[in-house]
Amino acid sequence: MAAPVLIDIDQIKSVLPGIDAVSAIEEGFVAYSQGKVDVPPVGEMIFDDPPGDVHIKYGAIIGDDYYTIKLASGFQNNPSLGIPRIQGMMLLFSQKTGESVAILLDGGHLTNVRTAAAGAVVSKYMAPKNVHRIGVFGSGVQGQMQVEYMKGIVDCKDIIAWGRSDESMAAYKSAMEAQGYTVETTRDAEAIASSCNMIITSTPSKEPLLTADQIRPGTHITAMGSDTPEKVELDPQILANADVLVVDSIPQSKSRGEIAKATEAGAIAEGAATELGVVIQDPSKGRTSDGQTTIADLTGVAVQDIQISKAVYKAVSA
Amino acid sequence: MAAPVLIDIDQIKSVLPGIDAVSAIEEGFVAYSQGKVDVPPVGEMIFDDPPGDVHIKYGAIIGDDYYTIKLASGFQNNPSLGIPRIQGMMLLFSQKTGESVAILLDGGHLTNVRTAAAGAVVSKYMAPKNVHRIGVFGSGVQGQMQVEYMKGIVDCKDIIAWGRSDESMAAYKSAMEAQGYTVETTRDAEAIASSCNMIITSTPSKEPLLTADQIRPGTHITAMGSDTPEKVELDPQILANADVLVVDSIPQSKSRGEIAKATEAGAIAEGAATELGVVIQDPSKGRTSDGQTTIADLTGVAVQDIQISKAVYKAVSA
Repeated sequence: MAAPVLIDIDQIKSVLPGIDAVSAIEEGFVAYSQGKVDVPPVGEMIFDDPPGDVHIKYGAIIGDDYYTIKLASGFQNNPSLGIPRIQGMMLLFSQKTGESVAILLDGGHLTNVRTAAAGAVVSKYMAPKNVHRIGVFGSGVQGQMQVEYMKGIVDCKDIIAWGRSDESMAAYKSAMEAQGYTVETTRDAEAIASSCNMIITSTPSKEPLLTADQIRPGTHITAMGSDTPEKVELDPQILANADVLVVDSIPQSKSRGEIAKATEAGAIAEGAATELGVVIQDPSKGRTSDGQTTIADLTGVAVQDIQISKAVYKAVSA
Repeated sequence: MAAPVLIDIDQIKSVLPGIDAVSAIEEGFVAYSQGKVDVPPVGEMIFDDPPGDVHIKYGAIIGDDYYTIKLASGFQNNPSLGIPRIQGMMLLFSQKTGESVAILLDGGHLTNVRTAAAGAVVSKYMAPKNVHRIGVFGSGVQGQMQVEYMKGIVDCKDIIAWGRSDESMAAYKSAMEAQGYTVETTRDAEAIASSCNMIITSTPSKEPLLTADQIRPGTHITAMGSDTPEKVELDPQILANADVLVVDSIPQSKSRGEIAKATEAGAIAEGAATELGVVIQDPSKGRTSDGQTTIADLTGVAVQDIQISKAVYKAVSA
């Protein structure tokens, strides 16, 4: 066996600025919605109290050169040991021979990148023409990266952010201001809903953060925090009132995310949402006027891992 | 993330002679039969005509230091490209933090080792006291390694081997004679059954190789070739006539291997077999006299991968 290329986090971070992650993820969603992606069920192993859980996500674009296996874990006690909670790597193999091509020791960073890039793809097809203020729920990594990856698509520098604590909001404000954004922080959801026509929710909330009466017509919401059957960020009535509902994966939206919750609550009908890859192919299924209220619900699909791991490998070996 | 240790095939082969693989696998089977091993369903991805299939096998001994993920594939056309058909690696992670500890680039070799070591564990509890001749069906890697790993447990140097072709039998004979064995080759199953009281079947056969009337009382058979629902090496009546039936995994034996076929054919009752880990703990459930006919049916369990990957990692980092 030819030895795989071992790519560490420093190499990954050094090539990322030169990679068009948004286009790579966009192409991935199209292939996914065209039925060209094999995504087997996620493998899982859970270690009890305290440790954590392990996920194995894998798949391939049929006929492509490679397939990707992502090994990721979250161990709650790690931070108290000085170790990141999230651990992870992506492995790239040849679809022609099964040979190991590359091992990307990204420590979970590429999952953040591909998730932020998916948000950017959504913005491209669903953001209002003139975003006057961006509202961000969640002061974590995605709260930052979702905005950063939108650069060049949504050119608004004015942010109002909601965080769990004063400390997390202060950290968010200083990180984003260092990048040239103007940042106000708040614990008042209404302050966000009333001043923003683009809202990102990126929290692990199990209760809705926003209610239907707060949302102004013409607003776009990208909800990417909810990725399990328990989590929810939006009141089901918000989805019921929306003009356009988009999801990254119709099959996944049946069991997790905002669409699942709203369908379960009877607020929307099954089949009410369009898949992102379909909207990319036919943008008339996304936002068509500034007056529309639109919502994208992202739970994350293996094709994003496939696309980002290939792009990084190609950049490193170029 | 601390970088994992990358262990290549040369390092693996250099430490293997110093590892007591048989004891490691034996301990693994005990933990497995005691219900201490978490073995989630195997992950699978299949690439069509010609390419191949990918398997993800993983698991952990609960409370142990590590968990193991094995990524393996078989691509039929590889040999014509000068690439081994089987590709594979084993990855070791901390059960306390999820951190990647070691990546063993074994190319599938450790699967051969742990499979041969399982056969040796079987011999320890089930071989007749005096093995006068070893019969081997299958002239491949396992046909050799099953005999080699028995050294020190079964001290017979006389082999009669059955292979698919004259070439494969000649290759087998010369490889084993170089190790000090006396080897006769044959295409006549009766010649093996009539002269051996220890028989190993290690073929991918889909038809029985042996019939019930050929088997002499007192014979032990280790059947390790059949590991899918289609494969079979022994006539169901051979299992019906046996005094002791042992399997590595009761749950797996319900759908694959000789026990599954014989149960399906109505030749033996459900529950007729004892798990190897149970026999190790209570050898009176294995062979108790030289007159007994005994059969072990091995389909391979993830705990073997866990045990061999840990043993190699410990030897390399010692």
